[in-house]
Amino acid sequence: MTELKQERAIRTRTRIIRAAAEEFDAHGFAGANVASIVERAGMTLGAMYFHFKSKEALAREVMNSQTEVIEPLLHSEGLQRLVDITLVWSYALRDDPLLRAGVRLAVEQGSFGLKDDSSFRRWERAMTECLEAAKKRGELLDEVEPALVAQFLVGACTGTQLDSQLSSGRSDLTERVVRMWRYLLPGIARRGAIAAIDLDPGRGRGA
Amino acid sequence: MTELKQERAIRTRTRIIRAAAEEFDAHGFAGANVASIVERAGMTLGAMYFHFKSKEALAREVMNSQTEVIEPLLHSEGLQRLVDITLVWSYALRDDPLLRAGVRLAVEQGSFGLKDDSSFRRWERAMTECLEAAKKRGELLDEVEPALVAQFLVGACTGTQLDSQLSSGRSDLTERVVRMWRYLLPGIARRGAIAAIDLDPGRGRGA
Repeated sequence: MTELKQERAIRTRTRIIRAAAEEFDAHGFAGANVASIVERAGMTLGAMYFHFKSKEALAREVMNSQTEVIEPLLHSEGLQRLVDITLVWSYALRDDPLLRAGVRLAVEQGSFGLKDDSSFRRWERAMTECLEAAKKRGELLDEVEPALVAQFLVGACTGTQLDSQLSSGRSDLTERVVRMWRYLLPGIARRGAIAAIDLDPGRGRGA
Repeated sequence: MTELKQERAIRTRTRIIRAAAEEFDAHGFAGANVASIVERAGMTLGAMYFHFKSKEALAREVMNSQTEVIEPLLHSEGLQRLVDITLVWSYALRDDPLLRAGVRLAVEQGSFGLKDDSSFRRWERAMTECLEAAKKRGELLDEVEPALVAQFLVGACTGTQLDSQLSSGRSDLTERVVRMWRYLLPGIARRGAIAAIDLDPGRGRGA
């Protein structure tokens, strides 16, 4: 493929994923319609099937694209970057269809017969990286294992957003995340590092 | 109703809920069949509809029955009772259909158009009671608000079991719960109270 063709293929793929996310966000997996996704993306069914063989393949791609939404909005390092991932995520979940559909599909996947933890593992890897950097910077308590804290955070954030969505349409999600950190930091980080962490909910805007 | 009739009605109701739980646990909401529930319960469709008007009513009842499974297995007070709720729950989730179906339906409810946080609020109330007792016993840090910690725990446990189910069929759930407490206790409890807490996974058997 020429560079131009490759670029065009990537743009098309991105457009399909975004259209699929909008459809899954609005209707869930069972209610989502492939014809509607094609229409939203403004292309033909054939073009779509060239990139994705099935609705399930689209769902997997949407689930696994969540972390990419957050990455460009982060400007900090170590423990603060980890905190910022959760704040930016909690804020973006209000209106980013890729995040909303991704977490919806990941949570509801049992209802359509999927058992795929890869989107959880992606979040875990992104968080483990921050925690390993935090460890090198001397921010964490000695006994803390980055990968295990990251694993806990992925589960805690997933369940927190589900409960927040059911009880308040996610309007209290950012404050829940801030409280999570108040409870959690003393068990994983050094006192001096905790004092330096900024838990201002405004950081969620990623500005 | 005479006392005998009342007792019989309660037994019948319990039998239906248990049969519904087995069916929802195995097949989820969409896949569950009311005729199969009736057959599992060994009664007529009419008798079942006398107690529950729809599959959705059954699903709501199953979701809201989760806490009742745990209650009789608890023998401790205050903070230890709170810890024991989570350990017993993580252990019982391996094979208790009521718990398994309850959490499955609560997590997947978006896929069948439900938006009902009442089962989350039941867990939250049970946990808040323990935390209020813990506060009176001087086990918690001064600034800790029982209801908000309980709210966090409900979300954290829900997401933790989902991830554990997808990645290990819940075989690592109890050890994940023990780690959760190691991370969390320093942020909510006094040092002396933490030292007295028993995090032995064997407590999950509720013996």
